[in-house]
Amino acid sequence: MRVLQFSCSLIFLLLCSALCLSYAAPRFPGSVIKPEQISSSTVAKSENELYKTKYFTQILDHFNYSPQSYHKFQQRYLINDTYWGGAKKNAPIFVYTGNEGDIEWFTQNTGFMFDIAPQFKALLVFIEHRFYGKSIPYGGNKEVAYANSSTLGHLSSTQALADYATIIIDLKKNLSATDSPVVVFGGSYGGMLAAWFRLKYPHVALGALASSAPILNFEDITSPYSFANIITQDFRSESENCYKVIKGSWQKIEDTAKQPGGLDLLQKSFHICNVVVCLNVQMCKAIDNPVHGNDTFAKLYAAANIYYNYTGHAKCFDLDDHSDPHGLDEWSWQACTEMVMPTDGSNEESIFPVSEPSYKDWAESCHDYYGVWPRPNWITTEFGGHDIKRVLKRFGSNIIFFNGLRDPWSGGGVLEDISKTIIAIVAKEGAHHVDLRYATKEDPEWLKEIRSREIKIITKWLSQYYTSLFHLSR
Amino acid sequence: MRVLQFSCSLIFLLLCSALCLSYAAPRFPGSVIKPEQISSSTVAKSENELYKTKYFTQILDHFNYSPQSYHKFQQRYLINDTYWGGAKKNAPIFVYTGNEGDIEWFTQNTGFMFDIAPQFKALLVFIEHRFYGKSIPYGGNKEVAYANSSTLGHLSSTQALADYATIIIDLKKNLSATDSPVVVFGGSYGGMLAAWFRLKYPHVALGALASSAPILNFEDITSPYSFANIITQDFRSESENCYKVIKGSWQKIEDTAKQPGGLDLLQKSFHICNVVVCLNVQMCKAIDNPVHGNDTFAKLYAAANIYYNYTGHAKCFDLDDHSDPHGLDEWSWQACTEMVMPTDGSNEESIFPVSEPSYKDWAESCHDYYGVWPRPNWITTEFGGHDIKRVLKRFGSNIIFFNGLRDPWSGGGVLEDISKTIIAIVAKEGAHHVDLRYATKEDPEWLKEIRSREIKIITKWLSQYYTSLFHLSR
Repeated sequence: MRVLQFSCSLIFLLLCSALCLSYAAPRFPGSVIKPEQISSSTVAKSENELYKTKYFTQILDHFNYSPQSYHKFQQRYLINDTYWGGAKKNAPIFVYTGNEGDIEWFTQNTGFMFDIAPQFKALLVFIEHRFYGKSIPYGGNKEVAYANSSTLGHLSSTQALADYATIIIDLKKNLSATDSPVVVFGGSYGGMLAAWFRLKYPHVALGALASSAPILNFEDITSPYSFANIITQDFRSESENCYKVIKGSWQKIEDTAKQPGGLDLLQKSFHICNVVVCLNVQMCKAIDNPVHGNDTFAKLYAAANIYYNYTGHAKCFDLDDHSDPHGLDEWSWQACTEMVMPTDGSNEESIFPVSEPSYKDWAESCHDYYGVWPRPNWITTEFGGHDIKRVLKRFGSNIIFFNGLRDPWSGGGVLEDISKTIIAIVAKEGAHHVDLRYATKEDPEWLKEIRSREIKIITKWLSQYYTSLFHLSR
Repeated sequence: MRVLQFSCSLIFLLLCSALCLSYAAPRFPGSVIKPEQISSSTVAKSENELYKTKYFTQILDHFNYSPQSYHKFQQRYLINDTYWGGAKKNAPIFVYTGNEGDIEWFTQNTGFMFDIAPQFKALLVFIEHRFYGKSIPYGGNKEVAYANSSTLGHLSSTQALADYATIIIDLKKNLSATDSPVVVFGGSYGGMLAAWFRLKYPHVALGALASSAPILNFEDITSPYSFANIITQDFRSESENCYKVIKGSWQKIEDTAKQPGGLDLLQKSFHICNVVVCLNVQMCKAIDNPVHGNDTFAKLYAAANIYYNYTGHAKCFDLDDHSDPHGLDEWSWQACTEMVMPTDGSNEESIFPVSEPSYKDWAESCHDYYGVWPRPNWITTEFGGHDIKRVLKRFGSNIIFFNGLRDPWSGGGVLEDISKTIIAIVAKEGAHHVDLRYATKEDPEWLKEIRSREIKIITKWLSQYYTSLFHLSR
């Protein structure tokens, strides 16, 4: 069940996966770091120090009242009350709105929340997205939950947001913390969910930090060429030579693949268990200074090594590696139904082979695979996106949109302030939700400044909230 | 299928229906006027002059992607383009968000929109709520659509709101009127939908006039005694004698019912085809000056006559009258699932018999009847309500909440300004969404003033919108 690859030809697959230009199911690239790659500052704290694991009995369908919709499932959330100031002081609650994957991974990689919890005396809660990790409906049985479109049908962003609202309200009630303000955090798809959550559930969340959230990468709002263009720019700015090597490699790979034994040769060249390789900005260094040889394939292998063999111990790349924390199969379902994000355009200048956006092919492959058609207009119908400056200029408040311009997803991000309280923070050198990582001594000045600006804004939200709490009778 | 009566004892039934204090399914009283009672100013215009009937192919489930959710149905909407300034001028579109009933009835009784359309050069659109009128899923087959909880499951407020968003976006596209601003209007449940629509779909609607929308009549936000208290106050302010007659009649009715032949006697006294009678503020005049006799029952009959026999021609009251434009069966379903509005408390002073709020009984009767349990916390989870002043003080904009304090539903309405753009208009003498009716020469000064204030506010929204449209690039 790998819709991800539907629109990828073999040659395309070689650069596919993390930075894949598939129509609608690219993996959010900055997230594709495996658990074993977590930096030492993260793993220094053991799981038990970071959080406790809890489960909430969640309803299967919030928007339907058929008897089937009343089915319940166990939804996982992680909680840390080390720094919390408590319910009596109405101390804040910081909630991470889980992405398309195991919530433990996102928790361990959102060090920012742990870093700032002490100064805010905040309770930390990380909620897992339904159908991912251990939050599987149908009795936790993945075989049943993923079996077909009828069971997968309940995997959608609107259901996930309603899950978060339901859990947060219940949790606050149980903690007698009804008046504790809630701020939501999220990166990538989780960032989209955080922003949408503030817009749809202002009565549950006071504000949102939406990091690298491409909420405008739907329909015709963002150019489908933007994704490839940003990657191209990333590579060119690192090294024009690197860009040329990769750009020139496509024809060579295609020619080789066509020759007798060509696929075997490619497989050996790339040390691929199945067939895939990934790119990264850092890879340019490997291409410019290859240690494995000097031909095109050797350079590409060296580059790929950076992404998929961080430790240097893996002998080959395993496409079907099930330790990947991201729920690719489930994301493919989401991409084939509602998360239709056009990123498959690639023009002459692009580092990728030229490619015309092809919604039709994508939609048909989705239908062939799942038996349902995508709803490409749904996200903009439900959450908007068109004319966002005009729509939100006098509506809504308290959202920070962070974007790093190195991140190919930044093309679909909110890059300009919308109002005094819906704010865009843009980092020229920034990567995918880099602000949410643990602070380290090596952090550049701009990153430190961005984080302290985020803290300042959140402080203001909370301060206004406490003033209102004091002045407005309930 | 009449859950409405679940919590009503026989004696209670006699004053039940329009002003029924059932736990959660009271009919919105101001709406309970039958088509034949429409004032002459309304019926002067024939249906064909008022609107054209159209149908939109709507998706059954917006929040689920199972193959079943892709089923389509024909949703009716009525449209009037007589006054529209057209797409080229980005002239506005006024949309009525349909209630629990036949949309034709609501259209004919929302003369305000017709009255103001010329000055705004507005297109008028009235969208029917799914499962009501002629907007029946499952091929328009009511027998199937209402058959059980599985099919009825798709009848919910969130689905209805998503229907409205989908139709409006599609309609604007077809009219090449993407930049035409949309203002939504609604009264009673339709008013709740209008307010929620502005909050949830600000990218579709610029503002909302929510008339007599009891969005706070959920959970513990509004006292369950408020409904009966307001009715009591209404009667007492009309006539203390009237209040005493009605209050004193309960014991008499109960005693009579217990006697041999008592039920027959009651039936004759009230000329009831089945068993029901209704009250109205006007009824006090009939009680104080009865024409049918002077005993208690005769006085009550005279009062009931005003409500259920407006023309004076009906010989008895037919509880199962299917010409009622309101979808009672469907509303019972909504009340038994999500629209759980506690209004069943009645204290010593109340004009009704003393009654303790009894959610448990209500919930059990719903479960017995439909096989599903109510979700009493859902509406506040999805739409909020608690601490509304604090939550919306710095979030959202452009909503008018009108309430008439004569209306028992006003207890659950927004009666104070929330911000500079979320405004409460309160009329001491006002009844249920009286502002939305056609203007007549007999309208009191206060009503004229309220309508002109509403017009002024809507004018401001539109003016701000056009300024933004001009200044903000898309």
